[in-house]
Amino acid sequence: MLSCGTLSAQIRQEIAIPDLKDYQTLKCDFHLHTVFSDGTVWPTVRVDEAYREGLDAIALTEHIEYRPHRQDIQASHNRSFEIAKKAAQNRNIILIPGSEITRSMPPGHSNALFISDADSLDRPEYRDAFAAAKRQNAFIFWNHPGWEAQQPDTTLWWDEHTELWKNGCLQGIEVVNANTYSPEAHQWCLDKKLTLLGNSDSHQPMQSDIDFSHGEHRPMTLVFVKERSAEGIREALLHRRTAVYFGENLIGEEAYLKELFENALQIRTVHQTDQSVTLTIFNRSDLVFHLEKTEHDPHLIYFRTCTLKPHSQQTLTIHLESGVRSNEVNFEVTNLWIAPHRGLPYTLKI
Amino acid sequence: MLSCGTLSAQIRQEIAIPDLKDYQTLKCDFHLHTVFSDGTVWPTVRVDEAYREGLDAIALTEHIEYRPHRQDIQASHNRSFEIAKKAAQNRNIILIPGSEITRSMPPGHSNALFISDADSLDRPEYRDAFAAAKRQNAFIFWNHPGWEAQQPDTTLWWDEHTELWKNGCLQGIEVVNANTYSPEAHQWCLDKKLTLLGNSDSHQPMQSDIDFSHGEHRPMTLVFVKERSAEGIREALLHRRTAVYFGENLIGEEAYLKELFENALQIRTVHQTDQSVTLTIFNRSDLVFHLEKTEHDPHLIYFRTCTLKPHSQQTLTIHLESGVRSNEVNFEVTNLWIAPHRGLPYTLKI
Amino acid sequence: MLSCGTLSAQIRQEIAIPDLKDYQTLKCDFHLHTVFSDGTVWPTVRVDEAYREGLDAIALTEHIEYRPHRQDIQASHNRSFEIAKKAAQNRNIILIPGSEITRSMPPGHSNALFISDADSLDRPEYRDAFAAAKRQNAFIFWNHPGWEAQQPDTTLWWDEHTELWKNGCLQGIEVVNANTYSPEAHQWCLDKKLTLLGNSDSHQPMQSDIDFSHGEHRPMTLVFVKERSAEGIREALLHRRTAVYFGENLIGEEAYLKELFENALQIRTVHQTDQSVTLTIFNRSDLVFHLEKTEHDPHLIYFRTCTLKPHSQQTLTIHLESGVRSNEVNFEVTNLWIAPHRGLPYTLKI
Amino acid sequence: MLSCGTLSAQIRQEIAIPDLKDYQTLKCDFHLHTVFSDGTVWPTVRVDEAYREGLDAIALTEHIEYRPHRQDIQASHNRSFEIAKKAAQNRNIILIPGSEITRSMPPGHSNALFISDADSLDRPEYRDAFAAAKRQNAFIFWNHPGWEAQQPDTTLWWDEHTELWKNGCLQGIEVVNANTYSPEAHQWCLDKKLTLLGNSDSHQPMQSDIDFSHGEHRPMTLVFVKERSAEGIREALLHRRTAVYFGENLIGEEAYLKELFENALQIRTVHQTDQSVTLTIFNRSDLVFHLEKTEHDPHLIYFRTCTLKPHSQQTLTIHLESGVRSNEVNFEVTNLWIAPHRGLPYTLKI
Repeated sequence: MLSCGTLSAQIRQEIAIPDLKDYQTLKCDFHLHTVFSDGTVWPTVRVDEAYREGLDAIALTEHIEYRPHRQDIQASHNRSFEIAKKAAQNRNIILIPGSEITRSMPPGHSNALFISDADSLDRPEYRDAFAAAKRQNAFIFWNHPGWEAQQPDTTLWWDEHTELWKNGCLQGIEVVNANTYSPEAHQWCLDKKLTLLGNSDSHQPMQSDIDFSHGEHRPMTLVFVKERSAEGIREALLHRRTAVYFGENLIGEEAYLKELFENALQIRTVHQTDQSVTLTIFNRSDLVFHLEKTEHDPHLIYFRTCTLKPHSQQTLTIHLESGVRSNEVNFEVTNLWIAPHRGLPYTLKI
Repeated sequence: MLSCGTLSAQIRQEIAIPDLKDYQTLKCDFHLHTVFSDGTVWPTVRVDEAYREGLDAIALTEHIEYRPHRQDIQASHNRSFEIAKKAAQNRNIILIPGSEITRSMPPGHSNALFISDADSLDRPEYRDAFAAAKRQNAFIFWNHPGWEAQQPDTTLWWDEHTELWKNGCLQGIEVVNANTYSPEAHQWCLDKKLTLLGNSDSHQPMQSDIDFSHGEHRPMTLVFVKERSAEGIREALLHRRTAVYFGENLIGEEAYLKELFENALQIRTVHQTDQSVTLTIFNRSDLVFHLEKTEHDPHLIYFRTCTLKPHSQQTLTIHLESGVRSNEVNFEVTNLWIAPHRGLPYTLKI
Repeated sequence: MLSCGTLSAQIRQEIAIPDLKDYQTLKCDFHLHTVFSDGTVWPTVRVDEAYREGLDAIALTEHIEYRPHRQDIQASHNRSFEIAKKAAQNRNIILIPGSEITRSMPPGHSNALFISDADSLDRPEYRDAFAAAKRQNAFIFWNHPGWEAQQPDTTLWWDEHTELWKNGCLQGIEVVNANTYSPEAHQWCLDKKLTLLGNSDSHQPMQSDIDFSHGEHRPMTLVFVKERSAEGIREALLHRRTAVYFGENLIGEEAYLKELFENALQIRTVHQTDQSVTLTIFNRSDLVFHLEKTEHDPHLIYFRTCTLKPHSQQTLTIHLESGVRSNEVNFEVTNLWIAPHRGLPYTLKI
Repeated sequence: MLSCGTLSAQIRQEIAIPDLKDYQTLKCDFHLHTVFSDGTVWPTVRVDEAYREGLDAIALTEHIEYRPHRQDIQASHNRSFEIAKKAAQNRNIILIPGSEITRSMPPGHSNALFISDADSLDRPEYRDAFAAAKRQNAFIFWNHPGWEAQQPDTTLWWDEHTELWKNGCLQGIEVVNANTYSPEAHQWCLDKKLTLLGNSDSHQPMQSDIDFSHGEHRPMTLVFVKERSAEGIREALLHRRTAVYFGENLIGEEAYLKELFENALQIRTVHQTDQSVTLTIFNRSDLVFHLEKTEHDPHLIYFRTCTLKPHSQQTLTIHLESGVRSNEVNFEVTNLWIAPHRGLPYTLKI
């Protein structure tokens, strides 16, 4: 009735990851469950969590074919979206309609986003389910391709995936699902021009999986949009403008990661003498950057490894020995992955 | 299917509050909601939370008369207990059956514990609901008597409460509900020999209400049992062997609080000279103790206030001026409440 | 030599306490020790700590008369200031020169700030030490007047304090020192128009005393300045424009606390019907506010108590019963102290 | 004077790493600085830190040749040991006398432990300093061999190190110094039978370098002793019974790491059917273990990767397909390093 409402007393912790020059960076989780499939929370909890954790968009992707709570809950597959919609509006969270087509391997599990009627995906044949999603103009991606329950020892691409891909029913892959990274999926995205995704696939209250008190965050997909809306997200997903934020790592195309790296950093002072150049660099983001020296003029003497901590200022000194010819301080940012386990190469000109 | 199960990877954080000489101290929360009334979590989540937070016993006390999710969930009032039972066994959490009789004031809301059939409490007249609970040999307590939605400015005891009390249908009161302490309820418990209770009344995932990363804990009822079982808890509740653990405070009868205080502390060394006595005291509990000097021989010179932090060793020096006659270091433990806002008096003999 | 300097990698955590309309709010700690008296850290550590904790100004107030490390360190009383000065400039921390005149009671310990030569305070007679400070145009305040080592059972004002006060050598008092609040000192400040101060008096590394991982902060003096400089601070101290930030509490004059409260809050939406007014309020500060209802039109039904958490949005609903005449929602902000244990009265007009 | 001493109110957080069958596991940091060389804390602070962090032994290893505070502090090189000795006794911390012989490369910096007179190491020629240490029966190890200030691009072993090694003046190497691991040093220790060490080399208050609020710990040397004493530590160092605890990793000989792994785990239940074996495993240590499947009978279907979190119970299910012949569940514990970047191989027989 009256009272001072504790429900809305929740604190939103913004995620400091910079925008790109032409795009806004949205933080998204496109794979979540609630009591309406095999999760353990009411749909509104997912909105509250997203608000608190600084996310911009989520999708509740209930399993079409797996509903272990059906003895207590029978409902349309659209129901969890309906319940969460108002809460999402109040919190300014973009709620993307979606569902998980849940099949044995091949083709395994896939999420269809932007669908208008989840019930129409409830079909005996998986091809019919994908076709129904496609008719609704869905964006469809393959979930956790390396899930050991379906691919025990090796992560395989099956003929069925080729077929789905050719039919426009496999537009992206989860290179990160929960706490697992798949290098195979990463390589496939590069080779076949698929969209990179990283999602939590959370079933429990988020705090059961993620230790926020130790600074952990859920895995998420960064989407580089022209406008902050569901339509803006769809457009960006179709054009593969994403990166995955996973632990300390970013996974994405070189151009995007490079721009994120540069926009996160601010060079505050430069002090140059004949013998050395000293820079103070401020990292204004939540990201950490691990630098590792690569090939360079041996007369430039600088760090072997260097860590740029979040929201911290760092002093870098580069010594110039006599005989120096190059002005290129070369290193790799080892936690920004442009290919499986390959860091972002970078050259700082001094 | 296979995998290494993250679900069971949750860490139990034991609560270090000592046992009493004759009783084991159980940590209990007798007021919780799930999706089966107006909560937002599946019943098993309450068991997982209790396990992680070091509790011994919980009750899922769904509202009989208030079921806002009924469009999606229609079920017996016993259902959330049934669902959680197996998880509780696996976790070694004692699950007490219970329900919340949810009425306007008077008599307001009450919890009935140890009932065998919650459905039988679903009666138009509140007196019939209480009678049904009583027939099942329930332990019944009044919830949040000072809830502003039902008692806007003053916390009143109504004739209806006298009637319930005389009929054995009001055996305890929540002196603490969520983040609110009621001094009136505390005083009524002392005057009418009622059992003190403190519960979370949680509706959301517990981590939404309690900031564990800052060391917060949910409010809980400490129950001093002869045996760790549902029956042991019932016996202790009937004999009023409880205390309430609320923030930094314990609320309870002087004898229990005194014994908890003494059992939490260990005097490790005593160093005595003509001019002073120095003690090292180790607090082996999670509790903090705030001491404040009271009336004393002015020739005993010691602290004005002193804080014994959890799991810490503290050095106390008492100076003996010439003319000293007493050996009594008197103080009040201001955060152990034996009556509304009255701390535990204590004398340390040196 | 080279490397990427970890020393400067420290993160500054700004303190979100609002400015006033006419003044900037500086966060200051005017009572600190280093190895140059009886502390255990090098002077630069105090600057690093201040930077990390979001402070604007500090004073290193070494004891003139108590130097337990003298076997290893003999130096001018000005030395710790000299050592820390450069680090303070680099960090943009205002370093106020100061010293602690360290005498038995009366008059006990006092800090003299803004002195030009601490060595000149090293005089056998305490009156000569104060006179030397005064000649340097010092601002002088009485430290921890209720320290049990010097005033075991009661906090007394001695004739010597009257004399110092009349001579302009007692311009303020620490109402908070470390973890102790003195209501007597608070009352004296009100009665005698003295400046309120609150300081850490830290001797150890700050993290030994303050548990930052649980959100604790050191006690500090908020100074409301016209300009962010040592001179700006002096001017504000002389005009008593301070408040003390201590745990969850602010201690200060009603006008300042009221303005801080109002500036911390932002009313985001107001929804009014015949029967109720609902406000959403955002607390954009680090401060928590505990509200407690006071005398009011009983036809206005609203919270009994309400907590406005930091960086949180809260919904307040006020119900209007028929017969309501007043539009004044009255409450006390119980953790903003305008006099010893007297909260800030406030009226919200709806 | 009197009071209740906050100084000793500090909480010791024990480190849960198991003992070995024949040896007790001591947690040690043999490389620390104070104001007596180029550190910023008083020697007693190092003891307080060690106590709080659960360490058993430390050495204050002041630079012999580098004393930037000499304008303010001139003292014997033995002085910081003398000052800290009493505090160490009170805290039950073993304080090992030591010093850092601080030379340019080669041979770089070395620590000499168990010396009786640090002043005698103050010699112009480095060979004389090592000889003086050796005459005192010191245990000597090479510090941070890959320090970029002395070895900018590659970590080299010089002839001078061969000479020292042959003369018994290079008995161990820091494979971890502060936040840097040296694979070259690790390999040298294996090849030349040298003792593995890992130390913090801390100059600042420990909390400036280590983020305890996020669960970080300082790097340390685990020493497997027959008795908890300085002599016990010396005996173990001479016999190379150490491992290095660095972030999530342990670095050491296979036999020790294997025993630590086994002693950390407790198999609580085994449930076997024709089709599967299910184990519940409890990790009773502070260590995390990352498991990665290796070569195995393909009819044994089990996890690809698995994480055993500290103080957690985990359920492992191994499926037995028809045709299975082996009972060996093979994996590598990837964060226990028995050689540079080579994890501990392990076989669990079911």
